Amino acid sequence: MVEHTMRAFDSDLQELAKRILDMGQSDLQQIDDAIEALLKRDTVLARRVVESDDLIDTQQRDIEENAIATIARRQPMAVDLREIAGALRISNDLERTGDLAENIAKRVLLLTSEFCIDEVMLQLQRMAQLARVQLEQVLHSYQHRDVAVALEVWRKDREIDALDNSLFRELLTYMMENPRSITFCAHMLFCAKNIERIGDHATNIAETVYYIVEGHPVPEERPKADLTSKERMRETL
Amino acid sequence: MVEHTMRAFDSDLQELAKRILDMGQSDLQQIDDAIEALLKRDTVLARRVVESDDLIDTQQRDIEENAIATIARRQPMAVDLREIAGALRISNDLERTGDLAENIAKRVLLLTSEFCIDEVMLQLQRMAQLARVQLEQVLHSYQHRDVAVALEVWRKDREIDALDNSLFRELLTYMMENPRSITFCAHMLFCAKNIERIGDHATNIAETVYYIVEGHPVPEERPKADLTSKERMRETL
Repeated sequence: MVEHTMRAFDSDLQELAKRILDMGQSDLQQIDDAIEALLKRDTVLARRVVESDDLIDTQQRDIEENAIATIARRQPMAVDLREIAGALRISNDLERTGDLAENIAKRVLLLTSEFCIDEVMLQLQRMAQLARVQLEQVLHSYQHRDVAVALEVWRKDREIDALDNSLFRELLTYMMENPRSITFCAHMLFCAKNIERIGDHATNIAETVYYIVEGHPVPEERPKADLTSKERMRETL
Repeated sequence: MVEHTMRAFDSDLQELAKRILDMGQSDLQQIDDAIEALLKRDTVLARRVVESDDLIDTQQRDIEENAIATIARRQPMAVDLREIAGALRISNDLERTGDLAENIAKRVLLLTSEFCIDEVMLQLQRMAQLARVQLEQVLHSYQHRDVAVALEVWRKDREIDALDNSLFRELLTYMMENPRSITFCAHMLFCAKNIERIGDHATNIAETVYYIVEGHPVPEERPKADLTSKERMRETL
């Protein structure tokens, strides 16, 4: 009987993990589509991204309900509670990630003029590629409970932050040089920030994977704001 | 025995609600301090806001642990699960609200020049005041399970969105008129967006309060993006 209960619980956990991975796949698709819509000024695709966000919200609610029902039904031990609490946290980060992809798509719909700076688009594409790989890797680390990969993701977030910083400065320079670029650049400031925050959520997930496996938070200080340095400050905004 | 268990569970729920309200108070304080720091360019206060965010993160984790432990211990019925699931959601929104206040404080630390546009500051202050009242009201609605107040908050979010829209346009105009204002205005674009998103989280909480009390989502369509209107689009970014 106990064995039977154990097996039922394991299958609950597997179901939960599967849903998380499905949700992650939805996010990856949304990021790809949002960036493609941005680069090609494809408003049809942008609208599809905006509409598809509802699916991700639903996935998150389902995971939440599922996780809570599992706890109530199985009264798991501490170690298993950690697993379920982790799934809840990850689903929140994935839901936020979906929102950020949606925000990028919404910016596409706001761009009224054809004005564009190719160099800026290239930088955004590069940032998005990095963020996408981070998310992909961290989902892999969750699927395989691979702490080494999770820590790699965790440490690598600074690269995206650095790109966001340099793009912030470049955008200001473009705006100062050419007032006609200002509206475009203002929207791109937000797009860059959205991508940078997708990276932050991948980092959050990396921390959760570490916590699920190790039972305690990452012992190192998260690479984050140093209050004495304005340069590093910006990275965590 | 059943009665005893019931009472223990009720006291668990009360404890959870109390923690949520405490966390909300921390957020209100952080919003006040962040805006004061911004208006006075008070870097000491800004640093304090950044440091205090850790407390809010801790409050959120405690609520999460507490909620999950309560579910595992008491195996509540559906109606009570809703209450606990709601507390989890609200604590997420309050945690994000704290991050947004922290982001405003971080911007204060990034402003290197003394350049300022008083009119912009006044608008930001007005927006922050509205967002603060929304958060206060929605916490009140949670405390008293007051659906009418929750719906009022839910409907009123558009006012903050409208202010954010008009400030967005004004900031672009300032930048076009005076290149020296560009760095300042770029930071203020983000501050305005942070405040607008605090309003969004108050709206999320209003939806959760409605759900806790009524057992189903708000039946009306949330005042949100109309894909045919660029104007309204911007409001939900």
